[in-house]
Amino acid sequence: MIEGQSFRDAMAQFAVSVTIITSDGKAGESGVTASSVTSVCDAPPIVLVCLNRAGRASKAIHQNGIFCVNLLASNQAPLARVFAGSGSLPMKERFALGHWSKLASGAPVLDGCQAALDCQLTDDKCVGTHIVLFGRVLAVRHQASTPPLLYAQRDYRRLLRWDEELPD
Amino acid sequence: MIEGQSFRDAMAQFAVSVTIITSDGKAGESGVTASSVTSVCDAPPIVLVCLNRAGRASKAIHQNGIFCVNLLASNQAPLARVFAGSGSLPMKERFALGHWSKLASGAPVLDGCQAALDCQLTDDKCVGTHIVLFGRVLAVRHQASTPPLLYAQRDYRRLLRWDEELPD
Repeated sequence: MIEGQSFRDAMAQFAVSVTIITSDGKAGESGVTASSVTSVCDAPPIVLVCLNRAGRASKAIHQNGIFCVNLLASNQAPLARVFAGSGSLPMKERFALGHWSKLASGAPVLDGCQAALDCQLTDDKCVGTHIVLFGRVLAVRHQASTPPLLYAQRDYRRLLRWDEELPD
Repeated sequence: MIEGQSFRDAMAQFAVSVTIITSDGKAGESGVTASSVTSVCDAPPIVLVCLNRAGRASKAIHQNGIFCVNLLASNQAPLARVFAGSGSLPMKERFALGHWSKLASGAPVLDGCQAALDCQLTDDKCVGTHIVLFGRVLAVRHQASTPPLLYAQRDYRRLLRWDEELPD
């Protein structure tokens, strides 16, 4: 069995897109930065998000029954840091740093983000310290031209250029 | 409810690391390219992989009870294409295009890959057309200096340069 540190060192080699997962409803407005997000299937369209079980965000999503995956653009690293807990700002002040609208579910949708996936929580699964939340996508919004914000090797990265012609 | 195409257009904005998921055992050697891979928690170290339920790979992993997540380096796009089914090569010929070793589980580990997470299958969950496979990480191998292979906007991309100094 390996140790957590070896695992984290290996996982740091992954380059992942950065999202802010938002929710609103009877448990109130919440948002948290997350990079463990992936599509599951497209018929029907379902995504999953892994969050810490002990965190406020996973509890709020559970109560509200809805969430939105906001895929960040490269200029949104400051918001990613704030929603990851940097500065320990109250939730209201975090949200005040961005402009937000709504789609179908009522969860906050970040203006200027690369893509937003507005979801109804359909299922969940507890795994160790974390919970995997499954969302049926109700509505989407996206803009094609923005470069994505990435997290890799333990920091936020901006994809400045990539090779358009990889050999087959 | 949104259509699959809108969902796929939005998901295409995500930049994701590319992996080949391998397995070996009583169901034989198998490998498939996958980009829906994420860490779940680190105590204990657990990852998840989403695969098509109808595919050979998910069935082989189920029978073999083990799998390895091979995170590809930027020069391994040709292997990613082959294991995604391009050319329709038989499994044996696909594996012949790379050099492989083993860690704890016996699943093939790709030489030169950026990181390998060798796993025991601990749980699974069917969601629509796909299955989410949970793996307890038994062993890892990684090299820090290789740039990652990415998949974004419907093609393989090489991360050539990223911004080292994003503003806080």
